[in-house]
Amino acid sequence: MAEPDSALLSLNTATVRAQWDLPSIIDGCARHNIRGISPWRDQVARAGLKQSASRIRDAGLVLSGYCRGGMFPAVDRESRRAALDDNKRAVDEALTLGAPCLVLVVGGLPKDRDGIIRSKDMHGAREMVRDGIGDLLEYARPAGMPLAIEPLHPMYAADRACVNTMAHANALCDELGTGLGIAVDAYHVWWDPDLQQQIERAGNASPSRLLAYHICDWLVPTTDLLNDRGMMGDGVIDLPLIRSWMEAAGYRGMHEVEIFSADNWWKRDPDDVLMTVRVRHRDAS
Amino acid sequence: MAEPDSALLSLNTATVRAQWDLPSIIDGCARHNIRGISPWRDQVARAGLKQSASRIRDAGLVLSGYCRGGMFPAVDRESRRAALDDNKRAVDEALTLGAPCLVLVVGGLPKDRDGIIRSKDMHGAREMVRDGIGDLLEYARPAGMPLAIEPLHPMYAADRACVNTMAHANALCDELGTGLGIAVDAYHVWWDPDLQQQIERAGNASPSRLLAYHICDWLVPTTDLLNDRGMMGDGVIDLPLIRSWMEAAGYRGMHEVEIFSADNWWKRDPDDVLMTVRVRHRDAS
Repeated sequence: MAEPDSALLSLNTATVRAQWDLPSIIDGCARHNIRGISPWRDQVARAGLKQSASRIRDAGLVLSGYCRGGMFPAVDRESRRAALDDNKRAVDEALTLGAPCLVLVVGGLPKDRDGIIRSKDMHGAREMVRDGIGDLLEYARPAGMPLAIEPLHPMYAADRACVNTMAHANALCDELGTGLGIAVDAYHVWWDPDLQQQIERAGNASPSRLLAYHICDWLVPTTDLLNDRGMMGDGVIDLPLIRSWMEAAGYRGMHEVEIFSADNWWKRDPDDVLMTVRVRHRDAS
Repeated sequence: MAEPDSALLSLNTATVRAQWDLPSIIDGCARHNIRGISPWRDQVARAGLKQSASRIRDAGLVLSGYCRGGMFPAVDRESRRAALDDNKRAVDEALTLGAPCLVLVVGGLPKDRDGIIRSKDMHGAREMVRDGIGDLLEYARPAGMPLAIEPLHPMYAADRACVNTMAHANALCDELGTGLGIAVDAYHVWWDPDLQQQIERAGNASPSRLLAYHICDWLVPTTDLLNDRGMMGDGVIDLPLIRSWMEAAGYRGMHEVEIFSADNWWKRDPDDVLMTVRVRHRDAS
């Protein structure tokens, strides 16, 4: 397997969010010659939208995505409307930042305004997701901002995303039409025996649905459902194989490293983290 | 939704394994009028196979399954042969105990003899699983002991079972033929948008592949990947809905309660646990 092009390396800012604010992360990427970045909304809000856009541009970085929209299901109509409005603002921000797509973490079972799950109706939640994406597409499509559904690992089905497979994401793209694609995150989908076929299906669509590719690793044991993701090479995912499937399906975009790691990488010197990201992108991705 | 028949309640012995040995669990089931039991091999080994069989029979209990065979992948041929031999012993034990099926947790990525994962080849692991089940079927089928593949949640794909969906289990049944079926555990498969359809597919096979039905609940948040399962009603799974799918597909077997819960149910008075199991089976399953 050929090494990946180092120019395709991108940093999802969550990877060093515990140590650095967004301006520091931008500077860090520039210093470590990481050309891509994918910032989170809360970090952009703190640093200022226009200031962040300028700083990213001035540092010579490009976005591989913008994190994130979604979270469509809610128990009442008013909350769902509020979620839609907030998603429209996320589209606007993504446009200002020059993002290639807005990543959608679609939400799980409907919650009340205190964030408590109030329904066990997964089918209904999935209908709310479909309808929410459909509504948002009416705003994002004419604005020229592609939406990227990120299927999350099934262990997040209840509380974060009830779209958990590439097949489901592809089906939503079939149903909802242009302007919608998929963010493939190896951590979430590596286990799926249908993965290669569904990547092919997404790549064969016209235009291609393969809007983003996220990488990190699955650790054994995994000690926390949320914040125990591994650096590439430290776990069990055959990342070069999945990259080869993405490339065979026509994907030429960036490789975005996104590592939530409360007890390890978030506790390290962030310059060491970025150096490790570079090396592992080359040697283990 | 009608209440489930209380005569169909069964206790997987893992639910109180921290508090009681197998003889105590058998006595507890009898005392609480729980008519089904599904013991684990290690407990049976400690209590004696023939003694356990007699004690279960004398208490008027029936088995809903025997836990467990499987763990087929390994890095070397000798270890795979040792796993097959051990699985044959599990079949013999299941016959002695009068189990309706031997539950298979099929294993994940190949490990060495120290239990360390030594390969990232999921496709290869799945071939080892298929071949291992095929070999075991040659022993179990003439002996009259059905094998029940238990698809595990994808969060166990690396280290416990690389069969993670009902669709995959059904495909293995298609390929390997009679004598093989499925143990449907709601905890592992509840998130799957294809679940109802795959239960139907399993039930429509002749003979039916629906050999066992396990229940517990998915907690939000889940604080541990292994041992934080919930009592029925304490989580987000619509258990009456899934039971209705099992019944519509022709399943008339037991409802086996299997709860791994290091910080909660394993710390409680086991008689209280069994009382709660009875109530929640009636009210929340």
